[in-house]
Amino acid sequence: MSHWTLVYDGPDVPGTGVRESLCTLGNGYFATRGAFPESRADGVHYPGTYVAGCYDRATSVVNGHQVDNEDLVNVPNWLPVTFRVGGGDWFERPDPALPQRTELDMRRGVLTRTFHVVDGDRTTRVTQRRLVSMRDPHLAALETTLVPVDWNGTLVLRSALDGEVTNSGVARYRDLNGRHLSALGTGSDGCGRVWLRCRTLTSRVEVALAARTRVVQGRRSSSGVVSCGGWVASDLTLDVAMGEQTTVEKVVALYTSRDHAIGDCLEAARDARDEAGSFDELLRRHTAVWHRLWRTCVLDVGGEQEQRVVNLHVFHLLQTLSPHTADLDVGVPARGLHGEAYRGHVFWDELFVFPFLNLRLPETARALLRYRWRRLPRARTAARAAGLRGALFPWQSGSDGREEAQRTHLNPRSGRWLSDHSHLQRHVGLAIAYNVWQHYQATGDTAFLAEFGAELLVEIARAFADMAVYDRALDRFTISGVMGPDEYHDGYPDRDAPGLNDNAYTNIMAVWTLSRALDALCALPGRCRGELQEALGLGAEELERFEAITRKMRVPFHDGVISQFAGYESLEEFDWEAHRGVRRLDRFLEAEGDDCNRYRVSKQADVLMLFFLLPDEEVTDILYRLGHPRDPELIPRTVDYYLARTSHGSTLSSVVHAWVLSRNDRRASWHFFLDALRSDVEDVQGGTTAEGVHLGAMAGTVDLLTRCYTGLTTHGGVLHLSPLLPAELERLFYVLRYRGHWGVEVEVRRDDVRVTVPPSDGPAVRVRIRESSTSVAPGSSCVLPLR
Amino acid sequence: MSHWTLVYDGPDVPGTGVRESLCTLGNGYFATRGAFPESRADGVHYPGTYVAGCYDRATSVVNGHQVDNEDLVNVPNWLPVTFRVGGGDWFERPDPALPQRTELDMRRGVLTRTFHVVDGDRTTRVTQRRLVSMRDPHLAALETTLVPVDWNGTLVLRSALDGEVTNSGVARYRDLNGRHLSALGTGSDGCGRVWLRCRTLTSRVEVALAARTRVVQGRRSSSGVVSCGGWVASDLTLDVAMGEQTTVEKVVALYTSRDHAIGDCLEAARDARDEAGSFDELLRRHTAVWHRLWRTCVLDVGGEQEQRVVNLHVFHLLQTLSPHTADLDVGVPARGLHGEAYRGHVFWDELFVFPFLNLRLPETARALLRYRWRRLPRARTAARAAGLRGALFPWQSGSDGREEAQRTHLNPRSGRWLSDHSHLQRHVGLAIAYNVWQHYQATGDTAFLAEFGAELLVEIARAFADMAVYDRALDRFTISGVMGPDEYHDGYPDRDAPGLNDNAYTNIMAVWTLSRALDALCALPGRCRGELQEALGLGAEELERFEAITRKMRVPFHDGVISQFAGYESLEEFDWEAHRGVRRLDRFLEAEGDDCNRYRVSKQADVLMLFFLLPDEEVTDILYRLGHPRDPELIPRTVDYYLARTSHGSTLSSVVHAWVLSRNDRRASWHFFLDALRSDVEDVQGGTTAEGVHLGAMAGTVDLLTRCYTGLTTHGGVLHLSPLLPAELERLFYVLRYRGHWGVEVEVRRDDVRVTVPPSDGPAVRVRIRESSTSVAPGSSCVLPLR
Repeated sequence: MSHWTLVYDGPDVPGTGVRESLCTLGNGYFATRGAFPESRADGVHYPGTYVAGCYDRATSVVNGHQVDNEDLVNVPNWLPVTFRVGGGDWFERPDPALPQRTELDMRRGVLTRTFHVVDGDRTTRVTQRRLVSMRDPHLAALETTLVPVDWNGTLVLRSALDGEVTNSGVARYRDLNGRHLSALGTGSDGCGRVWLRCRTLTSRVEVALAARTRVVQGRRSSSGVVSCGGWVASDLTLDVAMGEQTTVEKVVALYTSRDHAIGDCLEAARDARDEAGSFDELLRRHTAVWHRLWRTCVLDVGGEQEQRVVNLHVFHLLQTLSPHTADLDVGVPARGLHGEAYRGHVFWDELFVFPFLNLRLPETARALLRYRWRRLPRARTAARAAGLRGALFPWQSGSDGREEAQRTHLNPRSGRWLSDHSHLQRHVGLAIAYNVWQHYQATGDTAFLAEFGAELLVEIARAFADMAVYDRALDRFTISGVMGPDEYHDGYPDRDAPGLNDNAYTNIMAVWTLSRALDALCALPGRCRGELQEALGLGAEELERFEAITRKMRVPFHDGVISQFAGYESLEEFDWEAHRGVRRLDRFLEAEGDDCNRYRVSKQADVLMLFFLLPDEEVTDILYRLGHPRDPELIPRTVDYYLARTSHGSTLSSVVHAWVLSRNDRRASWHFFLDALRSDVEDVQGGTTAEGVHLGAMAGTVDLLTRCYTGLTTHGGVLHLSPLLPAELERLFYVLRYRGHWGVEVEVRRDDVRVTVPPSDGPAVRVRIRESSTSVAPGSSCVLPLR
Repeated sequence: MSHWTLVYDGPDVPGTGVRESLCTLGNGYFATRGAFPESRADGVHYPGTYVAGCYDRATSVVNGHQVDNEDLVNVPNWLPVTFRVGGGDWFERPDPALPQRTELDMRRGVLTRTFHVVDGDRTTRVTQRRLVSMRDPHLAALETTLVPVDWNGTLVLRSALDGEVTNSGVARYRDLNGRHLSALGTGSDGCGRVWLRCRTLTSRVEVALAARTRVVQGRRSSSGVVSCGGWVASDLTLDVAMGEQTTVEKVVALYTSRDHAIGDCLEAARDARDEAGSFDELLRRHTAVWHRLWRTCVLDVGGEQEQRVVNLHVFHLLQTLSPHTADLDVGVPARGLHGEAYRGHVFWDELFVFPFLNLRLPETARALLRYRWRRLPRARTAARAAGLRGALFPWQSGSDGREEAQRTHLNPRSGRWLSDHSHLQRHVGLAIAYNVWQHYQATGDTAFLAEFGAELLVEIARAFADMAVYDRALDRFTISGVMGPDEYHDGYPDRDAPGLNDNAYTNIMAVWTLSRALDALCALPGRCRGELQEALGLGAEELERFEAITRKMRVPFHDGVISQFAGYESLEEFDWEAHRGVRRLDRFLEAEGDDCNRYRVSKQADVLMLFFLLPDEEVTDILYRLGHPRDPELIPRTVDYYLARTSHGSTLSSVVHAWVLSRNDRRASWHFFLDALRSDVEDVQGGTTAEGVHLGAMAGTVDLLTRCYTGLTTHGGVLHLSPLLPAELERLFYVLRYRGHWGVEVEVRRDDVRVTVPPSDGPAVRVRIRESSTSVAPGSSCVLPLR
């Protein structure tokens, strides 16, 4: 097995669903789960098909509590292909006693399954290849080859489009209303061609599918069409012979009413289906695009085992966010397009995904920022409602940018419904601001700043400036009533009102954001800056306040470390020994009548996130500017302090911890890196991968290799590398798009670094390796020693 | 009356509709006609509301001929406000005997009407102000102030949303099916708030409107809601007193299912309505944006009369294509969003509009090119159907990029239905290629080329390269079976098959396009070029063919001038004297059993378009490269030849003629310029303005002032000016966005030119005035003498 394939033998593992998640196919426009059989019999798990940005809202009543849920919609299933022999049962699942094999070819984006079906005394071998076209984002195809092992006769192959699907992929959401589609019609166009039109219930997005099923090898004796509600199928009757192959291919086109350059989406789907080539033609074109994508995203790490998982992570990133995504109005769903967990909402963890895109597919990154910018009106309304100027982005962003964070949640351990304050995680806006600035740094694209980047950044900064209240006694600005990224702390144990004061992460990143907003305004052409300020009503006085806050924001300290928030030092130490093995301390303690808020315990990195996002010198500079003396030991001390008090409950924690330890404890860092690498491929949380891959963690591992271990930054127009490879890595090689240069090659070895800039008319690239600087002209390389 | 206002006194002029077209309000997202009353009584003209990019297709049978028409849809009318006193009739139209006044304030984008309504012995003075918000593209507002002149009592004001509209604004289309909407529902939200949801019939675009009507001054005694089918209204009963003002404001939000960042469009419309401020607040924010837009688009020409019309033209351009357009999937409708003529289809005349946008609103220009790029798949299918590689864009582009040009048309003079070959105007692709390259030259945006500009340009070039057939006998490439821009010639008089051979415009622009495609490939970073060529399957052999064609394309000549097409010299001279005053020679001759194809007669500039698009030196260079000796007299001779044989039947002709004469006959040029300037404001074609303004001609007049009379080009990164002001102009002043510089000021006077580059971090601007070159650093000016 090469590092380009993922292979599973043996029967599938019902219930865990890990493999099917990993074997999802997608193209940045839609994705479909692919590993399991797709018969329509009730009780069999339905593989989902998700279209980027197709959301629907449903209201449910659970235990007397009204719960609104807006879901990434499980749109009609295009894949169902089953068969039966004579009047027997439709094939539902492979025979577990006979060989089966699932092989995901990541290089070509093709999933191949081989299995056997036993029906009485008849055994049939089935091979299926499927793809979701990376060439034409609206097409997918499935080729099925049947070989009767020990019989001759007639079988009926059924190829369906199924709009009767529900969102039921996540067990704990099944009490919620999972019905989001209503069928508007089905029909046949003859010659094995059927179509289905349906609409999401409240958001009224129309989705149309058109399928073509034809025999490419073998004998078809007759065909027919059956339909029922939102389900329609072509039945093909096939004469088959022992040991002989019969091959049937299904090509499906999918359009929604939100697509560009169409009239009616059903018409578009039928046209695209009729114009689509054969499976082999689609495969050839699809493979060629994957080939180019891999060239763009190459990341050579050595070691086959690690390389395979790195490839898997890049593969999943590209399935969720590809060049096709760049022309859609979609954000980064936390679980990709691969599962229903988190309902497709957009969280702050897009933060982990942007570095991958900024340096490889900057158009896609820019489109994701535009997605946020298009939701500025809603964020402004939220800010006004909170008495702030500027924009307040929601913790869980729904399709139109409204807050979708739950206000109550169930602790399954205690059976109690609890208030949920996660909407107080205002820091999501800081992550967006960070993404804007990083994109600008990586691309040098002033036009992006002028068009919408600066507006987005400045509006976020304003809201934080207004959140900051000047405390005359302290001579400091303070921010109250928020939550940091650590979800174990949403308030003080002795107070009724939720929220914390002066969360260090929030306050320091707010200072950083205010400074970058001022930088961004300076980077704009004068007239553009003037127009923006005029449009926003942003005067000199407000900018002076920005500046003042960057000098006087409060950052709490205790015991010689940065405090997670003001008052942290009054919390009790936690008895970790007594709770070893408890994954969700919050639920455990609440069920015991206790409360995480009482203890110095973190679910995930909070203060540590600072050292993940910003180079140590930058954190030190911010603190110095705020009047805190430089202390070279502050950061290592703070890292140690919180690492000892964190439960590592999130897949993102491992990424953050690997990062912050990469300089001072390379062994521990590598350990956390491997942890993060295993998140999904080994389903380390025991079942959550089946609910959708952890896209942020996947991207984080790629970013650890690209930026962290090679010390790559793009600040101020300099490609700066300061590598410190873990002992386990001999060499790292990757390719970047950097400021208009396509395919800048970076090779980091133990002893030196080579940077190659491909030929172009562009300017030379300024490169700094540790302390040596040079300039690399297009069409040339530099090699700089590391010792 | 200042040059910022357009004022009409006296009664309206039923039938001509000129004024209402000119008084259209829009914001680049939607537009609404605004001058006439909006009661619902049958027989009264309905003012249309158009949303950019909302198309619907209808099939009609006219005289036994099936006619497909895809229309820019007249979406629900948001404006109806009427009233009645007691049980009287609803007010339908102003009293023509009493004073009335319509005033379009172009600087602020506000239309004010004052008129009187007489009902028995009661007279009421009405003042209405309306706006379509340039701040929030989804909002429009109407303020109505009523003053009873001579009575006291009660009136009922009716404020409606009307989805029962049809496309009936163009008289000659009224035989076609004009019904495009089906109502999905109406309702009331209380407090004078109503809503309407409807859907276009075949394209299934949902459109939702939500209105809020409230009394801001006066006494409301009661209110109610009435509805009927796709029509709903709030009725407000008002107690009014003689001489006292009662003011009612209506705010309407409009969303479609194609909008970004929404869930359901009705929910979005209701939310937007409820969050919208008062009329005065909307007006203040709207005015502020117009103020910035005018600063961006300033064009000072002197002379109040000309200045007013220039302002009107810029005003209409910005209403159709504003910064709001940049995030939509829309093209340039030939008649703007101001009327139903040409059904909103996108033609080549976007060519006339791009220069305005490239140098002022480049993001909007880029979005319009992206609109074409999104339709590449359809253009590729069209090319394949014609046996060509690359992309073949349609003459009349419908919503999904399909060809919507009619295949038969009626000659009303003869009553005969005739074959229509206008789809043979393949040159539309050349115009798109030209727009791509001009955009690149004006912006210097290589990222645009890399993202999609080069792909668009190259794919168009390929189709023309494949259209060109090598003729061994001539040792030339020839292109057969096409039409040039001149619609009086669609074939040879002695041949049955339509189409012409070697249309000079097509062939020369094809050579130009092939050269620019090669240039564009060279301008890309090497790896990007490689990826593009690989993706397109564009090998070295095909590029060599491009090159070969640029050296051996056939261009026909006769009598020492460029022939409009091969064989032109065999046509008869036309008896112009005998047909003086005939506007449509084609219809006239066909009715007589004759045919334009027999004569040396042009409807509009064809060869002359070459000298409009390309500097004389560039045409000369292309011809020289093709093996034709340089002849300084060729171009003036050719211009004279065709000017004498052109009927000036198109509003665009005047623009082209003013341009080509600008160097050699300034007086004639100015005459044509004034002709073009008058096109709509005086409705020179007698009624066509009411069907929609001529956006290309409007933009053309702005472009004559900006580029032609100042000799402005942006080729090769040099801002080159070579002014030759018409005697009638003392001074021209305008502001440009140029290669990342916001607000480059150009002032051309009789004796000198001043160029001012605003402060920024950008590079200096290379400026050439005639033969003197200089470099202007940001924050400085240069003044160069002209004598």
